[in-house]
Amino acid sequence: MHRNLSVRSRKNGESSAPAGKHRFTMSSLRGTQQPDLSKKLFKLIKTENHAISAYETAGRERVAIASQLSDWGESTGDDALSEVSDKLGVLLAEIAEQEDMFAQGLEEYRGVLKQIRNTESSVQPSRDHKAKISDELAKLKYKEPTSTKILTLEQELVRAEAQSLVAEAQLTNVTRQKFREAYQVHLAAFLERSEKQALLAKQAQRLLLLLDDTPVVPGEEHRPFEGNEAARVILNDAEAELKEWTPSWEMVPQEHQGIIEDHRNVVEGKHYEGEDSTVGSHFADAGASSVGGEHVGGQHVGGQQSGAVYSAEDREREQQLEQERERQPVAA
Amino acid sequence: MHRNLSVRSRKNGESSAPAGKHRFTMSSLRGTQQPDLSKKLFKLIKTENHAISAYETAGRERVAIASQLSDWGESTGDDALSEVSDKLGVLLAEIAEQEDMFAQGLEEYRGVLKQIRNTESSVQPSRDHKAKISDELAKLKYKEPTSTKILTLEQELVRAEAQSLVAEAQLTNVTRQKFREAYQVHLAAFLERSEKQALLAKQAQRLLLLLDDTPVVPGEEHRPFEGNEAARVILNDAEAELKEWTPSWEMVPQEHQGIIEDHRNVVEGKHYEGEDSTVGSHFADAGASSVGGEHVGGQHVGGQQSGAVYSAEDREREQQLEQERERQPVAA
Repeated sequence: MHRNLSVRSRKNGESSAPAGKHRFTMSSLRGTQQPDLSKKLFKLIKTENHAISAYETAGRERVAIASQLSDWGESTGDDALSEVSDKLGVLLAEIAEQEDMFAQGLEEYRGVLKQIRNTESSVQPSRDHKAKISDELAKLKYKEPTSTKILTLEQELVRAEAQSLVAEAQLTNVTRQKFREAYQVHLAAFLERSEKQALLAKQAQRLLLLLDDTPVVPGEEHRPFEGNEAARVILNDAEAELKEWTPSWEMVPQEHQGIIEDHRNVVEGKHYEGEDSTVGSHFADAGASSVGGEHVGGQHVGGQQSGAVYSAEDREREQQLEQERERQPVAA
Repeated sequence: MHRNLSVRSRKNGESSAPAGKHRFTMSSLRGTQQPDLSKKLFKLIKTENHAISAYETAGRERVAIASQLSDWGESTGDDALSEVSDKLGVLLAEIAEQEDMFAQGLEEYRGVLKQIRNTESSVQPSRDHKAKISDELAKLKYKEPTSTKILTLEQELVRAEAQSLVAEAQLTNVTRQKFREAYQVHLAAFLERSEKQALLAKQAQRLLLLLDDTPVVPGEEHRPFEGNEAARVILNDAEAELKEWTPSWEMVPQEHQGIIEDHRNVVEGKHYEGEDSTVGSHFADAGASSVGGEHVGGQHVGGQQSGAVYSAEDREREQQLEQERERQPVAA
């Protein structure tokens, strides 16, 4: 491990060039059209798309290789080689399948990142709006200190500030929660691929041992292959192990899980002047929280809980909650 | 696991189309120029090359993503997110590095496959030669049954048959040995990637837990981040684990290992009429063997020895032996 304590790119502020060769694609152009706030994440999501495509390609090629291997084995006219290469092909095809499932897992994680990016994009206007009014007000106070419009603008600024306060809270809440969720999904995809491919590879190692590679002298034949049954057993074992596989890491729900439900009531009881109803309904859960002393940040330092991943039910439950919230009228 | 008992392509004899979309590359043309015997393996080696490129691309993109993640984290202005994303980036970059090492391992396996392919290519002429002489002889016997050339051709055919016998033995010996070696290297590459990426991913899971994702209310700040030290510890742990990593599978030398040395003497004492000296020297070890009763093929059926991989020293030793053999004059 070439140890770095940071992978942050040295040129601060400038958009970091990818480590690989430069890609001359439309994505760079589109990136510049994004609001400042979401530009970096936009680019990351694009790069991730390239990486996912590469894994999909690899998986596809590996499936082809598995079948080519089996065909080649048959063409050698060597019974043992034919059987072993064919069954090895089955295991390699399954390993390739895992590559594809992995790509799907990365796609899921990419979807979660998009939620952060969308929040970033949607928060930008409220920042801009506040800045604009503040600007107008300053100008007016300088040019027409007695204008009656000053009071109106001041009121508008208070509303804009309140809206911005909510927007920023939404941003930080969504970002932290979705960041954790995204990388939990990401790491789970890596772990699942690792564990499943490892168990398949170990069965494939057993399979290879069925092939007697003791050299023969010219004119001599290899002894007849007697490993057909053993090869079948190995495939059965691999299938059974894959079926019985469960994640080696714990499915710990995220810390805020219980809270989402609680603080919905709080959100509904609160009202921030100027809150934009479209933004508000979208992020109803992020703007407020009933968090008291029950959560101490960063206390899970040790290895006791070495993994926290949303279970499928958790995710489903949260989605239901989100839908419910969207159906409810925003507090007004 | 969608269980197949074979991945052999259905259309027998025809060249199998890859599972993915059709590739319109030079490789198809070149493939047709290969001797029949090595055509299938030639294609497989080509496909493997595409797969390796895909993994290299994925690795490169993943390194870029790691750095983009860290940059994005910094740009959020959130101390906790900045620190966690930066250290997570370090671990993700290391995971990406493993992807690249994996591609190198596949490249090594591809090299071993090429040795089989080259043997296949070099055996083709001896098959063709034998067929040609046999043909000529038959024609001559029909047209000029009393020709004196018949005796010469018959002698030549005996030599060609002997040569062919050696070539076929070389082919089967090299193929079985290198097949096992190739897929041992192949599976070892998968296993190493799996095990190393899994340990890195589990440390990354610990890292994620440092990020407190408890929602805040508008105007409220997240509590200050106190996980810097813990994050450093996690990186140290990951580094230490990676350093201490050893393969979980056994490094069992191949069955024929001891034999290569023994039967060199046998090879030197033997002489096959008509043996082509360039082929002969190249495959000196494959043409003969002193194998007696000490090897029973396929007895490693059970799980006792669930992996047999050349150690680096084994491979080095064999290479040395090969070089020695090439330096020695062929038996004559």
